[in-house]
Amino acid sequence: MSPIVGVIGGGQLARMMIPPALALGVEIRIFAEGEGESATVAVTQVGDYHNSAEVLRFAKDVDVITFDHEHVPQPVLRELVAAGVRVHPTPDALLFAQDKLLMRARLTELGLPVPDWAELSDATDLVSFLDAHGGRAVVKTPRGGYDGKGVRMVDAADQVDDWFAAGGTLLAEELVEFRRELAQVIARRPSGQVEVWPVVETVQRGGVCAEVIAPAPHSRGRVASVAAKIAIAIAERLDVTGVLAVELFETTDERLLVNELAMRPHNTGHWSIDGATTSQFEQHLRAVLDLPLGATSTLAEWSVMVNVLGGPASGSMPDRYSAALADQPTAKFHSYGKQSRPGRKVGHVTAIGDELDDVVFRARAAAAFFEK
Amino acid sequence: MSPIVGVIGGGQLARMMIPPALALGVEIRIFAEGEGESATVAVTQVGDYHNSAEVLRFAKDVDVITFDHEHVPQPVLRELVAAGVRVHPTPDALLFAQDKLLMRARLTELGLPVPDWAELSDATDLVSFLDAHGGRAVVKTPRGGYDGKGVRMVDAADQVDDWFAAGGTLLAEELVEFRRELAQVIARRPSGQVEVWPVVETVQRGGVCAEVIAPAPHSRGRVASVAAKIAIAIAERLDVTGVLAVELFETTDERLLVNELAMRPHNTGHWSIDGATTSQFEQHLRAVLDLPLGATSTLAEWSVMVNVLGGPASGSMPDRYSAALADQPTAKFHSYGKQSRPGRKVGHVTAIGDELDDVVFRARAAAAFFEK
Repeated sequence: MSPIVGVIGGGQLARMMIPPALALGVEIRIFAEGEGESATVAVTQVGDYHNSAEVLRFAKDVDVITFDHEHVPQPVLRELVAAGVRVHPTPDALLFAQDKLLMRARLTELGLPVPDWAELSDATDLVSFLDAHGGRAVVKTPRGGYDGKGVRMVDAADQVDDWFAAGGTLLAEELVEFRRELAQVIARRPSGQVEVWPVVETVQRGGVCAEVIAPAPHSRGRVASVAAKIAIAIAERLDVTGVLAVELFETTDERLLVNELAMRPHNTGHWSIDGATTSQFEQHLRAVLDLPLGATSTLAEWSVMVNVLGGPASGSMPDRYSAALADQPTAKFHSYGKQSRPGRKVGHVTAIGDELDDVVFRARAAAAFFEK
Repeated sequence: MSPIVGVIGGGQLARMMIPPALALGVEIRIFAEGEGESATVAVTQVGDYHNSAEVLRFAKDVDVITFDHEHVPQPVLRELVAAGVRVHPTPDALLFAQDKLLMRARLTELGLPVPDWAELSDATDLVSFLDAHGGRAVVKTPRGGYDGKGVRMVDAADQVDDWFAAGGTLLAEELVEFRRELAQVIARRPSGQVEVWPVVETVQRGGVCAEVIAPAPHSRGRVASVAAKIAIAIAERLDVTGVLAVELFETTDERLLVNELAMRPHNTGHWSIDGATTSQFEQHLRAVLDLPLGATSTLAEWSVMVNVLGGPASGSMPDRYSAALADQPTAKFHSYGKQSRPGRKVGHVTAIGDELDDVVFRARAAAAFFEK
């Protein structure tokens, strides 16, 4: 019978796993936090992912558990494994996507290129770090941050007093002088097969990914090869299974440094739905089921993805379809089925083609219909 | 809020409408005949489509009703329209996809190219038709046939006695001397916009579509232009809305004759999921909602789709995935979530690329894993 994949989390990543699950003949069951989330059509249980009894009940008949997000607590993950449930990525790997301090320590130990960093116990540690790095640093809470949350640019030691007051240690990183941000998305099966999409350039606005160009311009050769090697080393040494996204800085002196890790389909891989032979969502399902991975070849020279954020005006994405669809008949629209709120990711648009200028224009023009 | 499309019928065509519905942010609700059908994830009601009360209840809150099949009786369709429900294609158009005699009469009236045909009231009529056509004919029941059912090659007047005994008239057609079979799939909005995919070549085995090559080899120019003109004329003159598939014979003397019509996504358009900018399933949703249609440009020079039929051995499609996926990493697999039965369409495989020989090989090799 059909293999069954259980996904914890009902957001847009779970939603975008549904089409390839249908195509592959995989039954997908989704554990959502509430009613009416993005992935609602395939939700089979609504509950609290902090509650191991609820998660265990959800996992009872599935072949593998995987994730829409990285927030499931380690004790819950470890109870699943103890109960004999296959979990991919495993708790041991996922830990490094959940805790940025552990990630920095492990990558450093493995000799992988990372920004200078330090663990901060108090403001005194931060003073030392600032002194050693030209008076500026990026300070992060080790856990729970995403889309720019839990990250601050700091130039005085009292600017994260509230975080110190909340308890625990913080992560300080040098403010990297970068030319641009890149991301390398790959997939790995438990049995070891790895497939790599082209490295992409990501444009961030306000700490949120705004636009992705695949492949990154001028990346063929050294940049592509180094990015792939870094991501493969991380996947293999941390035993990551499923999709792994490695966010990278390309520095002004042409080094690649690891910024963040995500162990699930990632915003920087959404272009692959329309621009690659195998999308990151299909590949994630194949990988966590330990099925052979698909080809990551591109369908055109360039793919450009632009996120659609909710604007100040309310209204759901479909309201603006008619004009957008008429204006850009080659653009691919992806709604997340969410109510629009200012700054909330409510969808994305992808265009593909052989001339980068034209592809960028079409993707931006299509997305622009929703930015008001 | 999201527009709502109600689909009557829970088979693979409804199933393949789910991914583009998710992408477009369209809510899709499916009325299935039973539990556990292909489109089960989006089924909101199980019932009998002959029962107008049940269908009316299903249609109550939807923006438009459309179809996975053409079997909904005219009285049920007309009750929907009378109740103020938008139905696309409309009952007036759908009639010509439901009744082959009415279709033949109407196309003849419009001057469109069709095989010689006659309405048969009894065996005497068939004797006359056989006498006038070299002793051979194709006889069809006007309603209810599909995939070769309700169609017989006849060379003696008593070979359809059982059909005459069942009552009603039959359709006789000349046995066309054809080089190959083609299909032209197009989409049309209620407000008039039409978009046309390339004409394709279809290879039939045992009356069932086995393989589709898009575009049809050597079709650029005259064949493509004539096929598109015929399909557009049919769509406009019969006021067809949504996807229209026109199956065509290319005769040995290089004419195109209309064979069959389908007013819904069609097996000969499945390649468009992986090979065209806009798939027939996405286009059908756009068309029935009267949203602007998407581009029908191709993503590669060639797309080849091979149907996967259930073989004598039982077992579901996923059982054979591992070998097929490993062998053909560029092939796109589409499971219909059905139990395998000999001869039953349980899925399809598509490959795309720039060399026809290579694309045909990859698609056939991938499909071959399921043919045992």
